[in-house]
Amino acid sequence: MNTFGSHFRLTTFGESHGPAIGGVIDGCPAGLTIDREWIRRDLSRRRGDGMTDTTSRHESDEVEWLSGLIDGQTTGTPIAFIVRNKDARSSDYDNLRHCYRPGHADYTYQQRYGLRDHRGGGRASGRETVARVVAGAIAKQLLHKQNVSIQATAHVPERRTADDTYGGVVECEIAGLPAGLGNPVFGKINALLAAAMMSIPSAIGFEMGSGFAAAGMTGREFVDPWNPADPSSLTQTNHCGGLQGGITNGMPVTFRVAFHPAATQLGATECLADDGTLQTIAITGRHDRCHVLRCPVIVESMAAITLLDVLLQK
Amino acid sequence: MNTFGSHFRLTTFGESHGPAIGGVIDGCPAGLTIDREWIRRDLSRRRGDGMTDTTSRHESDEVEWLSGLIDGQTTGTPIAFIVRNKDARSSDYDNLRHCYRPGHADYTYQQRYGLRDHRGGGRASGRETVARVVAGAIAKQLLHKQNVSIQATAHVPERRTADDTYGGVVECEIAGLPAGLGNPVFGKINALLAAAMMSIPSAIGFEMGSGFAAAGMTGREFVDPWNPADPSSLTQTNHCGGLQGGITNGMPVTFRVAFHPAATQLGATECLADDGTLQTIAITGRHDRCHVLRCPVIVESMAAITLLDVLLQK
Amino acid sequence: MNTFGSHFRLTTFGESHGPAIGGVIDGCPAGLTIDREWIRRDLSRRRGDGMTDTTSRHESDEVEWLSGLIDGQTTGTPIAFIVRNKDARSSDYDNLRHCYRPGHADYTYQQRYGLRDHRGGGRASGRETVARVVAGAIAKQLLHKQNVSIQATAHVPERRTADDTYGGVVECEIAGLPAGLGNPVFGKINALLAAAMMSIPSAIGFEMGSGFAAAGMTGREFVDPWNPADPSSLTQTNHCGGLQGGITNGMPVTFRVAFHPAATQLGATECLADDGTLQTIAITGRHDRCHVLRCPVIVESMAAITLLDVLLQK
Amino acid sequence: MNTFGSHFRLTTFGESHGPAIGGVIDGCPAGLTIDREWIRRDLSRRRGDGMTDTTSRHESDEVEWLSGLIDGQTTGTPIAFIVRNKDARSSDYDNLRHCYRPGHADYTYQQRYGLRDHRGGGRASGRETVARVVAGAIAKQLLHKQNVSIQATAHVPERRTADDTYGGVVECEIAGLPAGLGNPVFGKINALLAAAMMSIPSAIGFEMGSGFAAAGMTGREFVDPWNPADPSSLTQTNHCGGLQGGITNGMPVTFRVAFHPAATQLGATECLADDGTLQTIAITGRHDRCHVLRCPVIVESMAAITLLDVLLQK
Repeated sequence: MNTFGSHFRLTTFGESHGPAIGGVIDGCPAGLTIDREWIRRDLSRRRGDGMTDTTSRHESDEVEWLSGLIDGQTTGTPIAFIVRNKDARSSDYDNLRHCYRPGHADYTYQQRYGLRDHRGGGRASGRETVARVVAGAIAKQLLHKQNVSIQATAHVPERRTADDTYGGVVECEIAGLPAGLGNPVFGKINALLAAAMMSIPSAIGFEMGSGFAAAGMTGREFVDPWNPADPSSLTQTNHCGGLQGGITNGMPVTFRVAFHPAATQLGATECLADDGTLQTIAITGRHDRCHVLRCPVIVESMAAITLLDVLLQK
Repeated sequence: MNTFGSHFRLTTFGESHGPAIGGVIDGCPAGLTIDREWIRRDLSRRRGDGMTDTTSRHESDEVEWLSGLIDGQTTGTPIAFIVRNKDARSSDYDNLRHCYRPGHADYTYQQRYGLRDHRGGGRASGRETVARVVAGAIAKQLLHKQNVSIQATAHVPERRTADDTYGGVVECEIAGLPAGLGNPVFGKINALLAAAMMSIPSAIGFEMGSGFAAAGMTGREFVDPWNPADPSSLTQTNHCGGLQGGITNGMPVTFRVAFHPAATQLGATECLADDGTLQTIAITGRHDRCHVLRCPVIVESMAAITLLDVLLQK
Repeated sequence: MNTFGSHFRLTTFGESHGPAIGGVIDGCPAGLTIDREWIRRDLSRRRGDGMTDTTSRHESDEVEWLSGLIDGQTTGTPIAFIVRNKDARSSDYDNLRHCYRPGHADYTYQQRYGLRDHRGGGRASGRETVARVVAGAIAKQLLHKQNVSIQATAHVPERRTADDTYGGVVECEIAGLPAGLGNPVFGKINALLAAAMMSIPSAIGFEMGSGFAAAGMTGREFVDPWNPADPSSLTQTNHCGGLQGGITNGMPVTFRVAFHPAATQLGATECLADDGTLQTIAITGRHDRCHVLRCPVIVESMAAITLLDVLLQK
Repeated sequence: MNTFGSHFRLTTFGESHGPAIGGVIDGCPAGLTIDREWIRRDLSRRRGDGMTDTTSRHESDEVEWLSGLIDGQTTGTPIAFIVRNKDARSSDYDNLRHCYRPGHADYTYQQRYGLRDHRGGGRASGRETVARVVAGAIAKQLLHKQNVSIQATAHVPERRTADDTYGGVVECEIAGLPAGLGNPVFGKINALLAAAMMSIPSAIGFEMGSGFAAAGMTGREFVDPWNPADPSSLTQTNHCGGLQGGITNGMPVTFRVAFHPAATQLGATECLADDGTLQTIAITGRHDRCHVLRCPVIVESMAAITLLDVLLQK
């Protein structure tokens, strides 16, 4: 469904070329004065302002607040917000009404629902993440008050050719979490973070701490020895990524998310038509060459929503 | 929490050295005659019967059915089952009551709850997965009737030294799923599978299809071209792992799970005591040298529970 | 929380004097062409257009659709909608910022959250039900296609004095439901309907079928005898209200909801101030003398959402 | 489904004539030493020990604890427990395999699932409430530590004839709850309590405070005036039953539950057969003449689970 979290619970809505993208946050504690500049900054990072190789769609992403605030403060009731879509050029997509691009969700949505909003990827578009970033920025502010900070960075190939798209990896570290946070078994923070990250469009891999490299280690190499000499660092290494049995041990929580390259190639593309034949379609529209550069703030947002949710359970 | 799924919903309970491990399945369709031999076979795979380098704990793992069946058939009401723990030697763990082993959940559970069942890992033990395998075997039987099959295999280092533990990777393929299964955004099958897999003890990484390798590809390399010539295979390649926008496209769903090595090293181990000092403890008990060999059936079980849940939504 | 339902799931937001009231419907089946006239008609019933003794707030209640539709048809993705508040006169409420009216949620919200939106009842206002009526009208349309109809009527005192408010009872019948709908134990339709109805502002009692009168009957008087002579009516009477063990038997589902009188009395009112003293406040604003007349459409809406949710589980 | 609550979450299982009735409590705080005598006392009240006019089935109701405890203390992990069915005489029910009694869930379960456990009411039997009483007794102990107490009493007709069953009303008061507990809109405590109570077998009506009587009052009669003279009693009257806007105001929470008479009449009964004809069946088995006398402890149990759940959210 379109809801994430249990205590700090985000429901998102909106299509790429619909009237608006938005969200409802249920469970936000009362009494927070929202820092709107923080939100603007994170939305700007998501847009990739000032970056090369990112989208050419121009949106101001102004947030309109519909509920849950009085005098700029949260009241504890649901916070609804919308960001209007202004620069949608739906006619660019007219030729896709009966055609499915390779590597997109066109075909699967059609199979799932029997009809779809074909304009700009509809609900499957990366534009949906606008709502995550707004909610994530609020979550970060609440975490900040608890001295928890989140930092993500993108790693992408250094040399790129002009006419293709690229994937990459986003690395994230969450510092300041107390020990003893989280739940066992199906409620492990590992599992919650994995679900959060794999729900981001184009995410294709997730690993905690040493991750896949740990699969090749022996126990003696992997296990993090206790470090009683230094009260600021429980263990000497952090191969486990700050979690044991799914619960924080007080070390930084570290993880990495792999993103595959954007599927859209501008120009002539072999698409599958409704009648089962291939059709060569000239794909236009505005698309990223390396959308991964815009992903760190989305990763941070989902991490913030996930961890705040766990913190609010205490 | 200790519940997984929404339509086929498994709640598990039990500690490694408590009276029993068990589960309650809510939402199992009525009218299935349970194949108990299938369950026995999967429990045997989980025990690692006949494998070298696995645990020396001897359990017969007999399933006692408490509800939800009449004349061997499911009635649609909750199916509760237990497997009694018989070969628990709790006295092996007496010296751990006030000590935390490195690489285990001892410390984090103590921080989380203020007390813990220290015997054999308690709730964090891999023994908890017995309940997942029982429920997974039932889910597989229901999927089998829909011509869906699940197969997982372990990949572990070929050469292993005698006195250390090892990690590994489990690869899984789910064949026979129809196109159009799953949900967008937070309900993506990618996200559900990621959460399912990362909830397995010692799982530390997850990837769909080409996974982390896809982060280094270009779009032209990654995107799976349509394959209209062959009606049995929608696309020519399957880098995306059978999911687009989180929804099945009808190709096999493929993913890999990385497992870190078991933390337990027999013999003298530096443990953290309640008073903050290090203590050298002689660890005994029964432990795996390569527990990953026992993990494929657990991966299959969680995959089956996850996919059946999605199928039942239709 | 502010979400109701599991398969057809409504999340509502908005305060009486905030920018808008709205909702997000997640799980609405794709392919429904929304009948907007139906929605307008139900919103008009909720406003009490043409009734005496109801509110004097004038709102046009125009619905703005933000997502989930293409060419007027539902796409299966979340349907977000808002209704802007236009006739809010917040200054009428300035004297209530530090005072709690008797019989309202002023005091309890302040205790719950530490601050509150004091204007016009904030989130506790009956205006919140606008979102329920919009979602309910959509649910009714989907039920209508399954030949399920819902009809509620208000019963209020016949003679009323000019300067006081009144309570009443709303009676509701749901016809056309198939037998075998619902779930046992905590998922009984009785329980779902009870929760739905008691969540309506000022609801104070709920009964199925013969309800409280059944507490005074003997078994022979209460039990509905089978009626095999008439295939259109399973039982000769319907004291149980169409449910046995929480599951429909195919007879009409009948229930009644008691509403207490509106708490607001215009004129001088003894309010509790922040400092624990009583203060006499002149209450102005627009208020209903008999708000129960406006409640049938709200009861129908919640019944529709509840039953559609159960139907979609099949 | 068979799960109730979100923070203190009870899942129940078991049929009247199956091997056992049981439950899993997820979310019970760690560190409680369970008072088993309290549980025995409440199970005895549920059995109706020493009462006239109640069931003649003889069960010792011994609780077997399967998980979640160490040294008699809760550990925070799931508490699973079972009570074995010993005095089930299933052969009494052989003639009901293809027949539906009037007033029971026989017919609706058959319609719902296509097959059913026909012995003694199966899952729809009042025996299922054993698990609620065990969990409720634990919840009461946790509430007791917070000075919250719950007391329910049954009101049944004074004169009863020998050969029929009777209904009745159970009245309940919860004292000691702090103000500001609960949630608005769909999470109102009124709604949660209504769902909890209407899920009890044979419950047919629910009202808070003055309930249905309030529907006949005027606002001046109904509204509870502030009572600043007495710090121990916020309002002079308590017509609203301790809740305003669904949130506690610190006054006792009061409500009433109507129960219809038990449907079973011993002796010749007109049943509906599979083939649509009426058949006269001689009903034997053990049945209550006034089961409502056994209901107060069930009402208390569900109230305790509901309120503890809300308290744990703080």
